[in-house]
Amino acid sequence: MATTPPTRSPELRKDPVTNRWVIFSPARAKRPSDFKSKSPENPNNNSSSCPFCIGNEHQCAPEIFRVPPDPNWKLRVIENLYPALSRKLDHPNGQNDDSSSELSGLGRVVPGFGFHDVVIETPVHSVQLSDLDPSEIGDVLIAYKRRIEQIKQFDSIKYIQVFKNHGASAGASMSHSHSQMLSLPIVPASVSTRLNSMKEHFNQTGKCSLCKVQSKDLLINETSHFFSIAPYASSFPFEIWIIPRDHSSHFDELDNKKAVDLGGLLKLILKKMALQLNNPPFNFMIHTSPIQITDSEIPYSHWFLQIIPQLTGVGGFELGSGCYINPVFPGDAAKILRELNVPI
Amino acid sequence: MATTPPTRSPELRKDPVTNRWVIFSPARAKRPSDFKSKSPENPNNNSSSCPFCIGNEHQCAPEIFRVPPDPNWKLRVIENLYPALSRKLDHPNGQNDDSSSELSGLGRVVPGFGFHDVVIETPVHSVQLSDLDPSEIGDVLIAYKRRIEQIKQFDSIKYIQVFKNHGASAGASMSHSHSQMLSLPIVPASVSTRLNSMKEHFNQTGKCSLCKVQSKDLLINETSHFFSIAPYASSFPFEIWIIPRDHSSHFDELDNKKAVDLGGLLKLILKKMALQLNNPPFNFMIHTSPIQITDSEIPYSHWFLQIIPQLTGVGGFELGSGCYINPVFPGDAAKILRELNVPI
Repeated sequence: MATTPPTRSPELRKDPVTNRWVIFSPARAKRPSDFKSKSPENPNNNSSSCPFCIGNEHQCAPEIFRVPPDPNWKLRVIENLYPALSRKLDHPNGQNDDSSSELSGLGRVVPGFGFHDVVIETPVHSVQLSDLDPSEIGDVLIAYKRRIEQIKQFDSIKYIQVFKNHGASAGASMSHSHSQMLSLPIVPASVSTRLNSMKEHFNQTGKCSLCKVQSKDLLINETSHFFSIAPYASSFPFEIWIIPRDHSSHFDELDNKKAVDLGGLLKLILKKMALQLNNPPFNFMIHTSPIQITDSEIPYSHWFLQIIPQLTGVGGFELGSGCYINPVFPGDAAKILRELNVPI
Repeated sequence: MATTPPTRSPELRKDPVTNRWVIFSPARAKRPSDFKSKSPENPNNNSSSCPFCIGNEHQCAPEIFRVPPDPNWKLRVIENLYPALSRKLDHPNGQNDDSSSELSGLGRVVPGFGFHDVVIETPVHSVQLSDLDPSEIGDVLIAYKRRIEQIKQFDSIKYIQVFKNHGASAGASMSHSHSQMLSLPIVPASVSTRLNSMKEHFNQTGKCSLCKVQSKDLLINETSHFFSIAPYASSFPFEIWIIPRDHSSHFDELDNKKAVDLGGLLKLILKKMALQLNNPPFNFMIHTSPIQITDSEIPYSHWFLQIIPQLTGVGGFELGSGCYINPVFPGDAAKILRELNVPI
């Protein structure tokens, strides 16, 4: 294992998956082990008024399904009360790609048809996702899969972004533990970029860029079916990816057994992050493949789950260039998280 | 001028310059005119301890130049005390593109050679950029140009990102009015994407995508040499672009006369934004072309200045998909800003 010299020169690294340059700039850093969140209070800490709590179901937008299907539910999938897209709009059958979207004199435009769903991960206000058992977290993951399978029936939905905002400064407007699924009538440019980048790597090397742990120095923890790393060109300090060992292009290929395995690793990583970084606000995102594309069309694609603790802000440089400045080398972040012992 | 119906359906628009899809989602909005910043306090409001104030020059990193070159300076360009890149590293002469950057088993890597400079826009702590006269703001713009011309001498610098962070939540660590210039040994992916997107538009239509006001509904204000718009697919509420009327690929083609004209329009727009949105934290970014590429190689490229007030947060959806959700239609934002009267 490499030891870190006392001062390191900055360097730029390009991620082979996101195709993004990142500036690693240790001169701007505290010691990596000193990174802590200021941990702002969550909004809506009053459980009596929380519509996501069991017993308050009537305050919510309509339910899509619950697990188990009885009054003592353990999780619910509901519509978002303030959806970013509308499930009521007429939607075209078929392609919304550049060749068929309407091109006005100003740019392309597509009607805002789509689904914006909320997954309430627990009936209890004070319970966080990482407090659940591996099998209960597995149930949440299987709920994402079940909802994806329902939405797949709509030809005009092209991509489903599953994400979680934890903490107000990470974008959460409710403190009751939940995640969201936004089903889009387009494929986002960053997804196309990722697929193109993985395709290029595959064509150049004959290998998938995510099928193997790239370096033991970047490894945090591993299980039978998954491994977690600090990626080589992390955009953010202590950014973490959880990657399935078996090559798989779509998240919804997850089976029940692997869901429990992933639940255990996600729990461990979230606990480690909370302990090391002072319970930071965080986001996680599932990066999967467009839903209407089959595995054989994209043999180079490999889904993964990305976790970003909110420790640094974004300014004009990042907004302007799309490059990020990361004060913590991923090898340092991985070592700290790998060596941390967490009582589970 | 179109009147806004009381409820509008969401729609997705793709920007022809950034090539990014944006979800316009009025269901999530307050009325556009109700958007206000919470205007957090700036850090470092104590001018006696501010190294950027006149008289405290010895507390700063080395100076690059000042204007005028005497003790009563009006602006200074200095090195950043905590540079993201190092001006002391050995730097390769020539290309740092994908064909010559080092490809490790993990991804591409380039030494972190570059310049990270600060432009102190005024000697006086309490003065903001928008308080300056048009000609004084013009002097700041000409200082950017002069520094770009110096840095152009380094073959290994590929792109210079000029940006301003105003307010702590927009990334400013100092409240004394300043902007920054980060000179990079690579061309950021978002710059390449922008150039490719403008090239495609040029090839399809025979026209530059920014040479004309696209729609009177999106226009905010105009001067002899510049116009300001709310772009058709704004990623952020009240996002504003200031665009030169004359086709120009590189910001550093700006002459003194146009700099004063741009200074006047920038002042007006910043004043309007402060008045309408309660003095929000904001970023501005100059989007120009890579410095080693000549105009004739990129006839489709047109520089512009982008202003983003910080009114909404970013969460897992944006981090995951690269798509933004904007609750304010640009036509509404443009109308509000266009019709606002500001005493200057």
